[in-house]
Amino acid sequence: MKTILVLGAGRSSSALISYLLEFARKSNNQVVVGDLSYELALERVNDAEAGKAIAFNITNDQQSAEAIRAADVVVSLLPPHLHPAVARHCLAHDKHLLTASYVSEEMQSLHHAATAKGLLFLNECGLDPGIDHMSAMEIIHRVKQQGGKLKSFESFTGGLIAPETDPENPWRYKFTWNPRNVVMAGQGTAKYLHNGLYKYIPYQQLFKRTTAITVPGYGQFEGYANRNSLAYINAYGLDEIKTMLRGTLRYKGFCDAWNVLVQLGCCDDTYIIEQVTGMSHADFIEVFLVDGSGSVKQRVVQHFGLHPDGEEIKRLAWSGFFSDEKIGLPNGTPAQITEHILNKKWKLHAADRDMIVMWHRFVYEAGGKQHEIQSSLVVTGKDSVNTAMAKTVGLPLGMAARLLIEGRIKATGVQLPVLPEIYAPILKELKEYGISFKEQERTL
Amino acid sequence: MKTILVLGAGRSSSALISYLLEFARKSNNQVVVGDLSYELALERVNDAEAGKAIAFNITNDQQSAEAIRAADVVVSLLPPHLHPAVARHCLAHDKHLLTASYVSEEMQSLHHAATAKGLLFLNECGLDPGIDHMSAMEIIHRVKQQGGKLKSFESFTGGLIAPETDPENPWRYKFTWNPRNVVMAGQGTAKYLHNGLYKYIPYQQLFKRTTAITVPGYGQFEGYANRNSLAYINAYGLDEIKTMLRGTLRYKGFCDAWNVLVQLGCCDDTYIIEQVTGMSHADFIEVFLVDGSGSVKQRVVQHFGLHPDGEEIKRLAWSGFFSDEKIGLPNGTPAQITEHILNKKWKLHAADRDMIVMWHRFVYEAGGKQHEIQSSLVVTGKDSVNTAMAKTVGLPLGMAARLLIEGRIKATGVQLPVLPEIYAPILKELKEYGISFKEQERTL
Repeated sequence: MKTILVLGAGRSSSALISYLLEFARKSNNQVVVGDLSYELALERVNDAEAGKAIAFNITNDQQSAEAIRAADVVVSLLPPHLHPAVARHCLAHDKHLLTASYVSEEMQSLHHAATAKGLLFLNECGLDPGIDHMSAMEIIHRVKQQGGKLKSFESFTGGLIAPETDPENPWRYKFTWNPRNVVMAGQGTAKYLHNGLYKYIPYQQLFKRTTAITVPGYGQFEGYANRNSLAYINAYGLDEIKTMLRGTLRYKGFCDAWNVLVQLGCCDDTYIIEQVTGMSHADFIEVFLVDGSGSVKQRVVQHFGLHPDGEEIKRLAWSGFFSDEKIGLPNGTPAQITEHILNKKWKLHAADRDMIVMWHRFVYEAGGKQHEIQSSLVVTGKDSVNTAMAKTVGLPLGMAARLLIEGRIKATGVQLPVLPEIYAPILKELKEYGISFKEQERTL
Repeated sequence: MKTILVLGAGRSSSALISYLLEFARKSNNQVVVGDLSYELALERVNDAEAGKAIAFNITNDQQSAEAIRAADVVVSLLPPHLHPAVARHCLAHDKHLLTASYVSEEMQSLHHAATAKGLLFLNECGLDPGIDHMSAMEIIHRVKQQGGKLKSFESFTGGLIAPETDPENPWRYKFTWNPRNVVMAGQGTAKYLHNGLYKYIPYQQLFKRTTAITVPGYGQFEGYANRNSLAYINAYGLDEIKTMLRGTLRYKGFCDAWNVLVQLGCCDDTYIIEQVTGMSHADFIEVFLVDGSGSVKQRVVQHFGLHPDGEEIKRLAWSGFFSDEKIGLPNGTPAQITEHILNKKWKLHAADRDMIVMWHRFVYEAGGKQHEIQSSLVVTGKDSVNTAMAKTVGLPLGMAARLLIEGRIKATGVQLPVLPEIYAPILKELKEYGISFKEQERTL
């Protein structure tokens, strides 16, 4: 009997733990779920025979060592900055480690040590990063095997809401993952490659420089660039590619409205506004406006040259940014206050269904012609607990754990799921869960 | 005989050292000039009888202790982050300290220790900060003494070029102080008070939110907000003021053009662009642009909705941002590259004359009416060595040192020159050097 240790029983763990419990039951293995809250871990295990709940605190060295020593594979859903601590225990006790997080420099620095011990530290094995890498690599490897030369790769993923959820919500968006990360998204400079030239987009331009995306059957979307697309040129083995852009996908019109908040300074997290008690939503916007006549809404319209009944104002008004409602915080950074206001309307309700949309566009040369492949994935959640987000983040991790337990992965060291032995069986199994891509190909 | 130790013999030290040497000669005191470069210190002392040059390195503890122990008053022109180290030596050996730099938290933390020893650590005693504080406080105290109630204070200072310098330079600006600080200016969030409301301006809005300024006889200027005006409400004793704004002054039209560089991302200092060798100025701008048809200049025009022959493009073109000239750096952050390109045209030539412009506007209530005072200062340099900048930064420091040596300042602890015993004699003496304000008053 082998043991898979899952660290973290929070919001996004449900699909992963269900999958692993079912696998363990059938294969006579065991799943141990550890969380700061023993009750939460217990709730996730839900009396399953193959499951066991434990209290787990990574800052408790002895407790962590014991739990990890007793496992064969560790899946960490802890906040990314805690992964290196988990990884060091895994190194000490010769255990494989799986995460859905971006590889930090600290994690990368463990590559040689993990390799030397024959351990796999597989990261970026969730949705984005995760399924995006796997689905892209399947096509990239296929094109290369057929003698094609990849010229361009663009890829966008978004966690949205399904068309039938909140039909009056003009953003077509709610918080389906960490709200703070949504408010802070894009700060820093986005870097990508376009027609052979490095391109840099500062935060103040990011939400104005969108890519239009059409997903057949689902309508019109738009994407903005993620932090650093350049890092994946090498990871994907695309040294000769001319365009490489990874980004975030939103319903059409989201970015123009979001940009108003960005330009105002509402997403700034570097200083605290005091004496917020008593301030209304409109008072909050007021602090970013030039004095003048007219309401807060009128002055936003004026300052940004917007149409008073336009799409941007419609979204901001729906979120209550011009209302007299009290904020309800004593103080906070602009980003914290913005998150708090947004959460009043963007919090998922029990029956809300989220929707994941992923879209890739490849351009390659073969037979003297340019060809384009568009590949898209749409996954809809059941409700606010069984979300498409939890399913698409959790299942790839669960399947990778299963492959490891079954001895079907040979790779060692710090890895991404860009290797056929990892992505091929996972993509295949994901189809059984309704997670499958639609492809369209045409000659340009 | 008393000794004044001046630390730093760089660009902005000339007027200060000349003033102190002359004072020391007449009063039978001594000036010791210390610099990393003994030669530079020697050059500044220039055979003056009352002067002595030494090699000085603040990271050399023993050397620093010796030099500071032998002095009575220390004037530090070192980079601001080195002042606390100087201050600790001054505390250890019971010496007064003068700087022209903003009070850091570290400096502020020495207040009680300095007070306990009867030492004065006087900071912000140059031009801006410095003469701005002094000239403002003189008017503020006068208005208060006459029973007026201050409602509003706005103050802007800029280091520009004189009208006869570089008449074809459309920016009306050159580097007269640290170029790097000019390129990075305004990053962060500006905070000020307007009509009783706290206001916050993010970097992306800063150069669009300017205040128009007219200085009689010198024409039209504009000002943008400095980092934190709120901090001076208390320092100036203006607890009941409704509007408080300190900022930077430029010739009219500067900010619109500078904003194009800001919006493009040219002032970002957070990442390095590699392989700059071989890149032209226009190639540098290209990295921030969306792909499209037309020249770099045409695409900047298009992207920002500018007039192709407008004032912004005229300035950027004059600086060579659209030219095929090679940058001449191997790599660098956008801010470093921008500084390097700007420096090709903005470097002061020997005969160039700089010009300091300072402008205050006060509104106060008295006798049931609102009154306005505008107060302005214009100082023009002689040439690229004897600049108005060096003179206006150095003389207040020199005069404060003299007052200390003469025992005419009673204040102790970490202070700003907002006290009458400091600003009154300095403002009076500055007039002898042609540094005097013009005032206009009217009833609103």
